[in-house]
Amino acid sequence: MFQFSDRMNGLSANAIREIFKYLSDPEMISFAGGMPNRDALPAEILNELSERLFRDKKIYSVLQYGATEGYLPLRESGIEFVKRVGIQGIGLDNTLVITGGQQGIDLTCKIFLNKGDCVLVEDPTYVAVLHILKTYEAKAYGVKSDADGINTDDLEEKIKRYHPKFIYLVPTFGNPTGKTYPLEKRKKILSLAERYDVVILEDDPYSHLRFGGEPVPSIKSLDTTGRVIYNTSFSKIISPGIRCGLAVADPEIISKLVLCKQATDVHTSALSAALADGFLRGGYLDPQLKKILPIYLEKKTLMREAIKKYMPKDFECTDPNGGLFIFGEFKSGKCADDYFKTALENKVAYVKGVDFYAAGDVHNSLRLNFSNSTNAQIDTGMKILGKIFG
Amino acid sequence: MFQFSDRMNGLSANAIREIFKYLSDPEMISFAGGMPNRDALPAEILNELSERLFRDKKIYSVLQYGATEGYLPLRESGIEFVKRVGIQGIGLDNTLVITGGQQGIDLTCKIFLNKGDCVLVEDPTYVAVLHILKTYEAKAYGVKSDADGINTDDLEEKIKRYHPKFIYLVPTFGNPTGKTYPLEKRKKILSLAERYDVVILEDDPYSHLRFGGEPVPSIKSLDTTGRVIYNTSFSKIISPGIRCGLAVADPEIISKLVLCKQATDVHTSALSAALADGFLRGGYLDPQLKKILPIYLEKKTLMREAIKKYMPKDFECTDPNGGLFIFGEFKSGKCADDYFKTALENKVAYVKGVDFYAAGDVHNSLRLNFSNSTNAQIDTGMKILGKIFG
Repeated sequence: MFQFSDRMNGLSANAIREIFKYLSDPEMISFAGGMPNRDALPAEILNELSERLFRDKKIYSVLQYGATEGYLPLRESGIEFVKRVGIQGIGLDNTLVITGGQQGIDLTCKIFLNKGDCVLVEDPTYVAVLHILKTYEAKAYGVKSDADGINTDDLEEKIKRYHPKFIYLVPTFGNPTGKTYPLEKRKKILSLAERYDVVILEDDPYSHLRFGGEPVPSIKSLDTTGRVIYNTSFSKIISPGIRCGLAVADPEIISKLVLCKQATDVHTSALSAALADGFLRGGYLDPQLKKILPIYLEKKTLMREAIKKYMPKDFECTDPNGGLFIFGEFKSGKCADDYFKTALENKVAYVKGVDFYAAGDVHNSLRLNFSNSTNAQIDTGMKILGKIFG
Repeated sequence: MFQFSDRMNGLSANAIREIFKYLSDPEMISFAGGMPNRDALPAEILNELSERLFRDKKIYSVLQYGATEGYLPLRESGIEFVKRVGIQGIGLDNTLVITGGQQGIDLTCKIFLNKGDCVLVEDPTYVAVLHILKTYEAKAYGVKSDADGINTDDLEEKIKRYHPKFIYLVPTFGNPTGKTYPLEKRKKILSLAERYDVVILEDDPYSHLRFGGEPVPSIKSLDTTGRVIYNTSFSKIISPGIRCGLAVADPEIISKLVLCKQATDVHTSALSAALADGFLRGGYLDPQLKKILPIYLEKKTLMREAIKKYMPKDFECTDPNGGLFIFGEFKSGKCADDYFKTALENKVAYVKGVDFYAAGDVHNSLRLNFSNSTNAQIDTGMKILGKIFG
């Protein structure tokens, strides 16, 4: 009946959000979403921070309209926060508070993309970016992935072929694979971006969730030409429900992002921003990470053991040093998609690997989240999947 | 240096957000923004509601990822809430929690507008909608306004001429004029929309701020064909800083809005939504309105008196029964734009009327907000403006 815009043609719910509907079933074991563990949600700390906001007079500026750039104290503490990934020498005009990392992707698309423009992504990549690109009628092209991340030869070839407006990367504990690009690869990517004058969107919600290996500096920390937009998110380290993140970029880019953010949600909830700011300033992050990272390491290890125990021999999976996901592929080429419905009927949810591929043309994989299940559920769930796939 | 998208060409900060920068000056008297009075921000109630959330186990579902449709309890209490404007017989699938009323406008544009599409607005209209339309490379055409709102003859003529995708209206205490359309006009608008098969976006952040006259049912409450999208906001009655509102529409439209919302901020802050829900369910709204409406009436009355006392004789202004704004015009046709800088230098801010006109071609007016100043500031500020314009 209604005449919707062209961008709505063929736009369907993204795979993960669709699976959400099933997750209300309390019997469902979910390896689907990227949800933090319930024990990793710092409810008591946030309660204290919230009480303090209300006790102080600060609450009035939080409850009132604020600047589109975001709650000023969080922009300040955000400058300190991103030093953890090596980003130095930035000022307030390099920062923008965003309504979750997702909004950083959406606004980047808005300021750069015309209908028909191209974006390069690692294949497989974060499913939501493919969904967002459709809402801009833009084209996503997948770049091959090696064991240590995006293949730079293929990247160069595809930059030359497609002239992308930007390259979207999750270089640390990538979604869905959990891969982390080594420093040399990061430098190579940056030099390609400089040579061919391309912007990079570095999406980094996971780097603080490192439970093994050595930290690698962000691509943004190596950027001397202002072409890297860095998105971080407080969803995985504080709370996803409060929808708060931070974009760091060249002031010219920030000013354009601000213009578009004005036209979408005016500004991010100042209450959310004030809680994130209190968390960072209060020194709660390190104790929080110290508490949750051993739990996540244990869960990842358990899941890998269960995979070895229950899944067919040709199912090979990644072994990340952080993040929330394991990605597995049937080396025999077995199509994993057909089993999805059976798995849901047997009360186990995961995400089909195919949904993470730009062209939707690779069918032998699945993404498994280990953070949001109990240890017992990990074993039971993998046992069920093992039977289904066996 | 960067190759931005076409939509960024000529996109500049919207007038009100730009003025925000000056408002940090504590000496500035601001008649500019649409900010609630500080005394109207229910900090103590929200503190109690927040404590309760944390005390209950409810906080864990608030801090975790949620459904894009929004925090379920607020969608439920929202159904009750919109009965206040006569909207009956709707279900959950008619509702979507939004990140402020502004996001409702943005998402409506996203689902309906292709580049070059037309939207009709009342002239003058809410400045942000003109800004949002630019980000979709859509065209806004202004429809003449009478003393009681949009002129329906001109509306019909422009529907026939421009074939708009939708008509954007603030029919109750409209921004910027404060006008409220009578019931007969609402019925006429709806019948035109039906005859010419056009969608209506009814933006209603102000109707609960009525301090005089009789309530008029919303256009949505009269809609039997599902073509009215109704946006409400908790910004003016609870807090703008938490960025929370509700869209009510036909389920088919809601499902499209959800697809686009997934691709922008995943969902609205569940903390903000839970506070708004607690406020509605706790029965706090009526006492809150009883407290603030007499204050707003007093301020509007004082501002009109000060206008009469200080402003030139040819300055005629609206006398709204609610909302936050008075709109004034120099009947002599005097250009008000040139005085704006002088006013800022003299520490009084307002918004130039020209910014609210679709074509930016009417220069003899200004919008004055009365809610966010002290009574003394209203007198002092108008006295200063009187001298400047005198």
